[in-house]
Amino acid sequence: MKSSDRELIVEKKRWRFAEPPDKLRLRCGESLGPIDVAYETYGELSDGGDNAVLICHALTGDAHVAGKHSHDDHKPGWWDIMVGPGKAIDTDRYFVICSNFIGGCKGSTGPSSINPDTGKPYALDFPMVTVKDMVRVQRALVKECLGIDRLLCVIGGSFGGMQVLQWTIDYPEMVYAAMPIATACRLSALAIAFDEVGRQAIYSDPNWKGGDYYGGKPPHRGLAVARMIGHITYLSAESMHEKFGRGLQDRATVGYDFGPADFQVESYLRHQGDTFVQRFDANTYLYITKAMDYFDLVSDYGTLINAFEGVRSRYLVLSFTGDWLFPTHQSREIVRALQANAVDASFCEVESGYGHDVFLIKNPALEDIIINFLKNCQDGIRGAG
Amino acid sequence: MKSSDRELIVEKKRWRFAEPPDKLRLRCGESLGPIDVAYETYGELSDGGDNAVLICHALTGDAHVAGKHSHDDHKPGWWDIMVGPGKAIDTDRYFVICSNFIGGCKGSTGPSSINPDTGKPYALDFPMVTVKDMVRVQRALVKECLGIDRLLCVIGGSFGGMQVLQWTIDYPEMVYAAMPIATACRLSALAIAFDEVGRQAIYSDPNWKGGDYYGGKPPHRGLAVARMIGHITYLSAESMHEKFGRGLQDRATVGYDFGPADFQVESYLRHQGDTFVQRFDANTYLYITKAMDYFDLVSDYGTLINAFEGVRSRYLVLSFTGDWLFPTHQSREIVRALQANAVDASFCEVESGYGHDVFLIKNPALEDIIINFLKNCQDGIRGAG
Repeated sequence: MKSSDRELIVEKKRWRFAEPPDKLRLRCGESLGPIDVAYETYGELSDGGDNAVLICHALTGDAHVAGKHSHDDHKPGWWDIMVGPGKAIDTDRYFVICSNFIGGCKGSTGPSSINPDTGKPYALDFPMVTVKDMVRVQRALVKECLGIDRLLCVIGGSFGGMQVLQWTIDYPEMVYAAMPIATACRLSALAIAFDEVGRQAIYSDPNWKGGDYYGGKPPHRGLAVARMIGHITYLSAESMHEKFGRGLQDRATVGYDFGPADFQVESYLRHQGDTFVQRFDANTYLYITKAMDYFDLVSDYGTLINAFEGVRSRYLVLSFTGDWLFPTHQSREIVRALQANAVDASFCEVESGYGHDVFLIKNPALEDIIINFLKNCQDGIRGAG
Repeated sequence: MKSSDRELIVEKKRWRFAEPPDKLRLRCGESLGPIDVAYETYGELSDGGDNAVLICHALTGDAHVAGKHSHDDHKPGWWDIMVGPGKAIDTDRYFVICSNFIGGCKGSTGPSSINPDTGKPYALDFPMVTVKDMVRVQRALVKECLGIDRLLCVIGGSFGGMQVLQWTIDYPEMVYAAMPIATACRLSALAIAFDEVGRQAIYSDPNWKGGDYYGGKPPHRGLAVARMIGHITYLSAESMHEKFGRGLQDRATVGYDFGPADFQVESYLRHQGDTFVQRFDANTYLYITKAMDYFDLVSDYGTLINAFEGVRSRYLVLSFTGDWLFPTHQSREIVRALQANAVDASFCEVESGYGHDVFLIKNPALEDIIINFLKNCQDGIRGAG
């Protein structure tokens, strides 16, 4: 039995901190506490504590990165193709950690959590959280809860990649290596535009009620539209053409009506919207897209070169040819600023027509790159030990 | 006084045809009548009747292509930069015609028109109209109402370009020359996807009420979201970057809230949505995006080469480098199929980072191309007698 065939059963864990009066002071000026952090770990921490890999999830992910919670679970974690025994991020070799970011809706404190001051869900009373705040909470989890002083590698794609960059800037001594994937030091105007339209779709849903929908009907229609918009941006024109083209959905000719989907691509998007609303909270969608829009290493530090002035990690920056939401030139911009600081930064643009989401899809070239980088990092950290 | 400085005052006109029992049989199998066609004309028809230029408008356009309806009008027609005395489509030289397509909401019969059978607006009882139907109505206007046997040129961008292509296929003897701009012989899966999400935004608005909102509150929120989505696709990442970047909207720092727009691009999109709903009908948006999705010369004729088998026009096909909604390869596909039929077809990809909508923006290179093509056509039609 190959190790990659072994079923990985993982446990949902939760850690509480920032208990009042020791609330966490957030970047927006408000304070938050207590804070629950939902997280999962995979594999074993080495005696030297030098094999920990932190994975930062993207907009709609969660702490459940791989494996199943029980043998009956019908679906594994969101990056199960990459993380597990014998896989590229090998849990026989690395101690993998993933936590749901604050503001989330998957176990960590967020707008759907109970506000201890009122006994009701926070809704829009939840303070605005930024990438910096999220990373600060992850650092507390890693250091205070798990007792790890230095991470072998911090890995994340898309919004997860923004967290990776912030980690290396804010806690340079804690990050031996960093792998920001398909990300940017700040969103483009185009990406902000899509985020804003998604938010407008949610605001427009009368069930949203200014965010106070908990206990009632959630704004599923608006959230579904937001998800459909997002989903289009995660694919590429080429992959949509290959996957759907103009294929009709279970019909020989178009329907000349506004009923069932005419085209497969319509049916696919409707399905994406419908399933997403079953697992995601609309207010979290609002908060996290705002955190994404606000992330801006250039305005925070004056220049991107300044932002990376104190970093001490080695980097592997990855982008994908078919990604138009976080196009390659944004990754190159990061690499140039790192290299201007004489930082050890490699860059690879992976060939893929698929689009932004491609890191979630089986890709042997990507796996090889990750395997080699992690192995080199482990050799390095032990040599440097 | 240069002729281009003269103010062009135009009159709204309307023509009625297809009076019952002579209703127009539509492609979907249903019949429609009577049909009102809102149109405008500019300039004078030559004695030989050989200087008529028909302009086909895009998704949200109308018959009012240029000039003003009165001196007090605050805004000229939608292509006033291109059409008028002394302009590229020179109304001192050409007799310009533009009509609102059927299914529209700008004077021609559409879903917001009164259904004579019920005395109430059609709403979703309006039959599905296709590009072929729209062109058939335009042909009736040109031939029966205006008495013109042959058009010097049919011009249109985007959805208007689809009408241009259909014109040359269905009425080859009536079209001396054709100028399809930034268009395609069928939408890509990506473009259908955006159309569908726009429709879903409208369906999701409770004021839509299955289309029966006339006399009540219109589904403005849903239509605004649809417009915002559309608007993003009309721009390019590059032009959004240049126009807005990450500039903040009337504020020094981000707001950390969900109130006023943080970024200029958000404010711009909100404004686009808000103003659009004042001038456009949501049901028309649904019908016309469907007509756009359904347009498919390949499936209609087996192959694109077959589609152009009987055409007799000369073509100038134009695309724009920054257009990702109707990318250049779609225009090239048209040109290749025309050339395979030994048709006189020129192609020009105009350099512009602006995006799909660029033909609506002042562009001297584009003007020169249009001026020369029309002049050559006029020389040709007169030479050909």
